[in-house]
Amino acid sequence: MVRQALIPAGASPLPPAEASIRKLFASGIEEIILSLSGASENSARAWKEMAEPFSRTSPVKEAPAELAGKIRGDFLLVDPAVIYDSIALHVLVNETRRNLLLTGRFGESVGLARLEKESLEKLNPEFLAFFLGTAPAGTKAAPACPEWLALRKTETLLWKRIVRQSKTDPMPAMPVGPAADAADADAADADTTDSAEICRLIEEAESLRAVRREVLLNPGPAATTDSVKYAQVCPDICPREKEFGDVMQWIVSELSLMAGKPGRVETVLFGGSGTAADEVMISSCVPNDGRLLIVDNGAYGERFAKIAAVYGLDFEVYKSPGFKALDTGVLKERLLEGNFTHFALVYHETTTGLLNPAPELCRFCAERNITTMVDAVSAFAAIPIDMDKDCFDFMASTSNKNIQGMAGSCFVFCRKEALEKLKDHPMRNYYLNLWDQYTWFAKTGQTRFTPPVQCLYSLRQAIIETKLEGIENRYKRYSACWELLVRGVKKLGLSMLVPEAIQSHLITAVIDPPSPDYDFNTLHDLARSRGFTIYPGKLSDADTFRIANIGDIQPKEMEAFTELLENYVKTLG
Amino acid sequence: MVRQALIPAGASPLPPAEASIRKLFASGIEEIILSLSGASENSARAWKEMAEPFSRTSPVKEAPAELAGKIRGDFLLVDPAVIYDSIALHVLVNETRRNLLLTGRFGESVGLARLEKESLEKLNPEFLAFFLGTAPAGTKAAPACPEWLALRKTETLLWKRIVRQSKTDPMPAMPVGPAADAADADAADADTTDSAEICRLIEEAESLRAVRREVLLNPGPAATTDSVKYAQVCPDICPREKEFGDVMQWIVSELSLMAGKPGRVETVLFGGSGTAADEVMISSCVPNDGRLLIVDNGAYGERFAKIAAVYGLDFEVYKSPGFKALDTGVLKERLLEGNFTHFALVYHETTTGLLNPAPELCRFCAERNITTMVDAVSAFAAIPIDMDKDCFDFMASTSNKNIQGMAGSCFVFCRKEALEKLKDHPMRNYYLNLWDQYTWFAKTGQTRFTPPVQCLYSLRQAIIETKLEGIENRYKRYSACWELLVRGVKKLGLSMLVPEAIQSHLITAVIDPPSPDYDFNTLHDLARSRGFTIYPGKLSDADTFRIANIGDIQPKEMEAFTELLENYVKTLG
Repeated sequence: MVRQALIPAGASPLPPAEASIRKLFASGIEEIILSLSGASENSARAWKEMAEPFSRTSPVKEAPAELAGKIRGDFLLVDPAVIYDSIALHVLVNETRRNLLLTGRFGESVGLARLEKESLEKLNPEFLAFFLGTAPAGTKAAPACPEWLALRKTETLLWKRIVRQSKTDPMPAMPVGPAADAADADAADADTTDSAEICRLIEEAESLRAVRREVLLNPGPAATTDSVKYAQVCPDICPREKEFGDVMQWIVSELSLMAGKPGRVETVLFGGSGTAADEVMISSCVPNDGRLLIVDNGAYGERFAKIAAVYGLDFEVYKSPGFKALDTGVLKERLLEGNFTHFALVYHETTTGLLNPAPELCRFCAERNITTMVDAVSAFAAIPIDMDKDCFDFMASTSNKNIQGMAGSCFVFCRKEALEKLKDHPMRNYYLNLWDQYTWFAKTGQTRFTPPVQCLYSLRQAIIETKLEGIENRYKRYSACWELLVRGVKKLGLSMLVPEAIQSHLITAVIDPPSPDYDFNTLHDLARSRGFTIYPGKLSDADTFRIANIGDIQPKEMEAFTELLENYVKTLG
Repeated sequence: MVRQALIPAGASPLPPAEASIRKLFASGIEEIILSLSGASENSARAWKEMAEPFSRTSPVKEAPAELAGKIRGDFLLVDPAVIYDSIALHVLVNETRRNLLLTGRFGESVGLARLEKESLEKLNPEFLAFFLGTAPAGTKAAPACPEWLALRKTETLLWKRIVRQSKTDPMPAMPVGPAADAADADAADADTTDSAEICRLIEEAESLRAVRREVLLNPGPAATTDSVKYAQVCPDICPREKEFGDVMQWIVSELSLMAGKPGRVETVLFGGSGTAADEVMISSCVPNDGRLLIVDNGAYGERFAKIAAVYGLDFEVYKSPGFKALDTGVLKERLLEGNFTHFALVYHETTTGLLNPAPELCRFCAERNITTMVDAVSAFAAIPIDMDKDCFDFMASTSNKNIQGMAGSCFVFCRKEALEKLKDHPMRNYYLNLWDQYTWFAKTGQTRFTPPVQCLYSLRQAIIETKLEGIENRYKRYSACWELLVRGVKKLGLSMLVPEAIQSHLITAVIDPPSPDYDFNTLHDLARSRGFTIYPGKLSDADTFRIANIGDIQPKEMEAFTELLENYVKTLG
């Protein structure tokens, strides 16, 4: 699996560089190293500015050949001036061979060739799009990097020569669509209009592979990027292979880092929905002599109680309306009076968009040695969480909400000390048992049962993109969408179920327009015909519809939706 | 969702027709209707012969405009002479607009246009690749079909005119790669070499999107086709939308038809692995006063017992070695003596490749009113099953074995009468409860919890391809691979763990070569480097490795593997 890309960034970045960085991350590259060796101060600054929005792009001073220890395993060396169809990366990522060059001819196709001394001497190429190499653990520098770089000796175009030679050379070449070198635009023999025409062709080809945009404003599964969708398309693999174990290990490590400080959290993967993760917690984390208090101020709190009932746990439900802030004083009193050992709470109640004060309550529990279980299904990866600071012992979430992956896998985050306590707990089910799943993976690097392989590959891509955006920035983007929605709702004189101060900024329950002409299905179908999906309310005691602003959506899309809403409401009597 | 394609098959089929049929099915078309109206006897025969291997291709005599009742909902009308890049179908399937034409220019791009009277009058086109239309339920004929057909008045090429006009026309056109009309090859002004060159370009473009071939010979997840992989890439959708409910309804209906006669079986979907489906059965189908006999002659029978133990069921294990036929006489005696009400058996024990006589034993149970639960995880969709005839009350399977879909969803098949008995059974867990999951879906057309959306889309494609091949033919293909394997194994003087007569022909446990030099990991790594994935044995009392021959694999690939095995064994002392 190709995880790193290395860009030798000498001259100032040309326009293709940024597009290339986007395409690299979209194709599953986790980290890009910008080697600024030899760059002037000005061009180093230009590179840093350009790379700024991409948190996983690290500028370094060393030359590629000196990057001992920074390049580990398979990597791509990318010419930053090359314009290419992203299908080229699909081809490279599918390759099992290493030391491959992706070469091309200006305005025509780029092709795959093997880096062998003999071929190189024959070709003496200078303009190469990609080099796919491998740096086995322990090597001092990325091997073959120096050779590749030596190929870029001069700035003169030698394309015609390469093309001529590749026609007589037995070297296999695989065409991967049009490509060009933007650096050539300055060269005397290059035609700038050709370069623009190639860009147009590439955009056209890429747009054909795009997936129809549907803006999901339902409370999850959330909208995803095309790169997350395409990450599901990968070579078949037996999930017992070490290679796939490494993918899962990377996923759980990265998820753990999103929930707490390094080394403090263990993430345990399951195949199933968010409810499955809730059931994992409730069924696995309460011993037979435990006593559980469940807060129910929405459908998901109620579900906690249903699960506890099924397993015959000793539990009590603390009920509170879904449209009012929890009375934490009364709740804390009840926690103490009832001698509870365990506490379960929904952080963000998807039913109404109400945000419960989970950190406050869990900190209170931690001081009294009460184990806490938090459903963070629609909070995680938007609201910043530190399980140590917030005192969450166990926390459930899923791949298809704010992390912006596909539905099909879920996970339980565990604070290390809390996890160890499960060792002697009774096993109340088989598939959803937390301790068994955790220990088996820790021992073997495999899940106990066949994992949802393709869903996990797309989760990997979703994690890459979450890291690129950053959880705080993601919450800012979500909040910006929420503000636009709230502004629109207020402008129409509509009310919201939950007071603004305790809203999550992730999901908003809007009270139905008072007009007798209002009909949710009409609004839904109108919105759907324009590419927006909305969702009815879920509380039996209030007539609402819900607008979520999670997933890969942009403020301008929320703006378009509020306009649509406005136009619809205006038609009502 | 576009489910049907209609091909007006007048003249004899040209070479592109067969490729087109393959591409249509690969893009998610469930059924192709060949309208032979106006075809001569000879050309009708040629069409029927060509369509023979595609079971879901129905030749009819009616003209497209007369296909009342046969075209339901969205459909594609396809010119059988057109050569096109399959990306065109991706574009069409992504479209929400209807009454669209995909037009083109010979040797260049085809583009999308809207079928409107005005545009048509202006364009007067004759050569069109596709028409995307819709026939709402209850309409007498596919609307707009006659109009479209009228466009093909003459056989003369009017492409240049279309191109010229489309340049001045405001009609949006979306290029979808090169295309050509093979019928033009005969026309005086067409260049046959151009047509060949376009075919080459199309193949090149399609091959770039291909996914690296890995031949999985591990016992599942099995190898899948690229079309099943790409079926995961679809517009985001809220799974509560009726549109997705219809997809799930189609999936369960089609799966039910693979397990029994129409109306006899209900299939209940879950998100999870095959083990989850096993747990659904064991935890949901035995009442508190039930008494369960479990056959354990491999890891999966043993797993049944673990699940039963977790739930504290009243059960007994009947143990038998994994390499010997079950003694059905003794087993039947035990069933009666023990007063068992429930019986659980693994049909095909994936551990060893042993096929248990499930129909014989379940028929015996049925006569004695004993409810039967069969793990058919790796039997279903290869070994023909009729739950009524075979007397299976409940049967578990998964999306990622012989049905050739992706891992992430599983299902329990239920005989209708058996299902009804669950009504008053205790609920022992929440996520994996069969009765709740069944009744909720029956009532709402939705699953109780977020389903693995993309996995189900690919399962839909896998079902289309299973129907095309047919389960009996699939088992023949698998058996042909197995025969090649067994021949190779015997040639090397190696032995198999299970006697040939009771082998499943799906998975074979081969006893390790007796040489001290033999090392599974070496063999595994060698195979993997050539694109084959194999798997170690799972029995503690025998040293074996396992070769599965399920999934999208071909006899020639098994041949290549046996050669590799032979070469490896020859290197041993």
